[in-house]
Amino acid sequence: MNEALERASRIKLVIFDVDGVLTDGSLIWGDDGLEYKAFNSHDGLGMKMLKASGVAMAIITGRSSRVVTRRAEGTGIAYVYQGAEDKLIAFQDLLQKTGLRAEQCAFMGDDVVDLPPMRRCGLAVTVPAAPDLVKQHSHYVTKHEGGHGAARELCELVMQAQGTFTAQLQQFLL
Amino acid sequence: MNEALERASRIKLVIFDVDGVLTDGSLIWGDDGLEYKAFNSHDGLGMKMLKASGVAMAIITGRSSRVVTRRAEGTGIAYVYQGAEDKLIAFQDLLQKTGLRAEQCAFMGDDVVDLPPMRRCGLAVTVPAAPDLVKQHSHYVTKHEGGHGAARELCELVMQAQGTFTAQLQQFLL
Amino acid sequence: MNEALERASRIKLVIFDVDGVLTDGSLIWGDDGLEYKAFNSHDGLGMKMLKASGVAMAIITGRSSRVVTRRAEGTGIAYVYQGAEDKLIAFQDLLQKTGLRAEQCAFMGDDVVDLPPMRRCGLAVTVPAAPDLVKQHSHYVTKHEGGHGAARELCELVMQAQGTFTAQLQQFLL
Amino acid sequence: MNEALERASRIKLVIFDVDGVLTDGSLIWGDDGLEYKAFNSHDGLGMKMLKASGVAMAIITGRSSRVVTRRAEGTGIAYVYQGAEDKLIAFQDLLQKTGLRAEQCAFMGDDVVDLPPMRRCGLAVTVPAAPDLVKQHSHYVTKHEGGHGAARELCELVMQAQGTFTAQLQQFLL
Repeated sequence: MNEALERASRIKLVIFDVDGVLTDGSLIWGDDGLEYKAFNSHDGLGMKMLKASGVAMAIITGRSSRVVTRRAEGTGIAYVYQGAEDKLIAFQDLLQKTGLRAEQCAFMGDDVVDLPPMRRCGLAVTVPAAPDLVKQHSHYVTKHEGGHGAARELCELVMQAQGTFTAQLQQFLL
Repeated sequence: MNEALERASRIKLVIFDVDGVLTDGSLIWGDDGLEYKAFNSHDGLGMKMLKASGVAMAIITGRSSRVVTRRAEGTGIAYVYQGAEDKLIAFQDLLQKTGLRAEQCAFMGDDVVDLPPMRRCGLAVTVPAAPDLVKQHSHYVTKHEGGHGAARELCELVMQAQGTFTAQLQQFLL
Repeated sequence: MNEALERASRIKLVIFDVDGVLTDGSLIWGDDGLEYKAFNSHDGLGMKMLKASGVAMAIITGRSSRVVTRRAEGTGIAYVYQGAEDKLIAFQDLLQKTGLRAEQCAFMGDDVVDLPPMRRCGLAVTVPAAPDLVKQHSHYVTKHEGGHGAARELCELVMQAQGTFTAQLQQFLL
Repeated sequence: MNEALERASRIKLVIFDVDGVLTDGSLIWGDDGLEYKAFNSHDGLGMKMLKASGVAMAIITGRSSRVVTRRAEGTGIAYVYQGAEDKLIAFQDLLQKTGLRAEQCAFMGDDVVDLPPMRRCGLAVTVPAAPDLVKQHSHYVTKHEGGHGAARELCELVMQAQGTFTAQLQQFLL
């Protein structure tokens, strides 16, 4: 936890995988060919506070869906990579675009495909349902499951480490 | 619990947040741009009994969705504020509209955006999944999660405190 | 359990409530006005075996939805009462239609609106999530929650009590 | 477990039931007549790795839905039998088509209708929510529930038994 907090203090960009991180990993499909996702309201508020605190956000996901674009717009996520079969390529493109170094980025993933960026970023975070191998390569495992507040937990961790959380909460305590 | 019951005995209006209170906090979205919500059948019956017992109900939510209007109509909720970015403004408007004092209102929320009205109303209630800060400002934390009977639990608490619960149940015991 | 088994041995008709019994109580609504329900595959097979064993089935629900009609057709449920605000009237109509006595009927409900038929039928069954008052008026509380195998559990209980369960399983053990 | 591993070492084809195995058993229906299923993202990656390791996959399900075809295509499942009322006939057809012997096939089911192929195949696997009778006829019961990683667990078991799992993971550890 101490190491996670120290790493979190340097983060300028938080990158989220989608399925299993911003959702519980359910791929909900209809017979009409449409796809559905269940995001979490606590996560959304955490992201808005994180952005207001001065940290940027991105999504890198292997799948592709219009609801991801909509979720990103609604929560202030600036960079969205969908259909990213090789997540390392997307991660490296993101570093170039933002001019950030890898240790200034957090990556939150839930499966082995997320390991390449997780092993290179400054703060690797995963969820309780992740395979053991992913947990072994993580600096922090959230208490909340994906789609049930895991992303909110990471947002709060970063704000706490950076001393910005109290200021974000203050607006609701007037 | 004793303080919560005493506070509940004075309540004339119960105000519900939606996501995380009347639902489990899932924001279910389809690729066609539609939004879905999962309400709870136990909650619905509790609301109908509460209304029949003489207590009014309202919804104040930061998001906006047609299903919320429909849910309000089906359960006898008289006042609906959607898209309420500042929940305190909606709360104060509600006080003016109903002529009630803040201590005659209960507010059930699940996140820090709900704190401004929760800190001013007569009975602040939250759910197990709420952040600690919200629990610290609540007079009562339900045993049931949002979308799984939390609202029903509040409805029963108010009716028990006001001595109207037995009469409401009597119709089913003839 | 012994009393429940003895009561189950006399059952000729099993009546199910829908929300909270055949589902987990979630009322899933879309912004387009459509309604969705999540039934359970284990329940469906239990109902087919129960019907094949010679026991009839019915649905009595206070709400109304096309998916209920479809579910009844797919599982061999012969009688469907939807929009039944007073479940006792539907129950009494069902007795007249089938020529059965109340003690030959089981009723599975999950809330206080189900009490009038539950208090008059031969075998009253409910689910773990039901209010205490409903449990107090039940002869049997299932181990499985509604929408997660509760109805299957009742189907098996009736077949076991009537000595028909082994024969129903035999077809899968050839 | 040792017997399961030994049996898994001989498997050339893994056959999945759908409802309760690739999903949590929920049959999600809309009032417009459409059907929905919630698959799991961990399962999908497990299937892709299993296929890449040289093991073929099939689906045998009693129900019928377009989303199953789509899921099979997206995960590399070569053979799909839908509407298979008698799963043994489908299983025997599959043996003929592939030229495999029964002991080279694993079958993962969650209910008594799955017993005929499960009792004849080389590795019978089921989920925690399955009836006891199905567990008694299984060589392995997964720790994860259906729709929550059960299929992934079987994919990993087969790859571990065949010594191919480490190679599959290696691509993510470069």
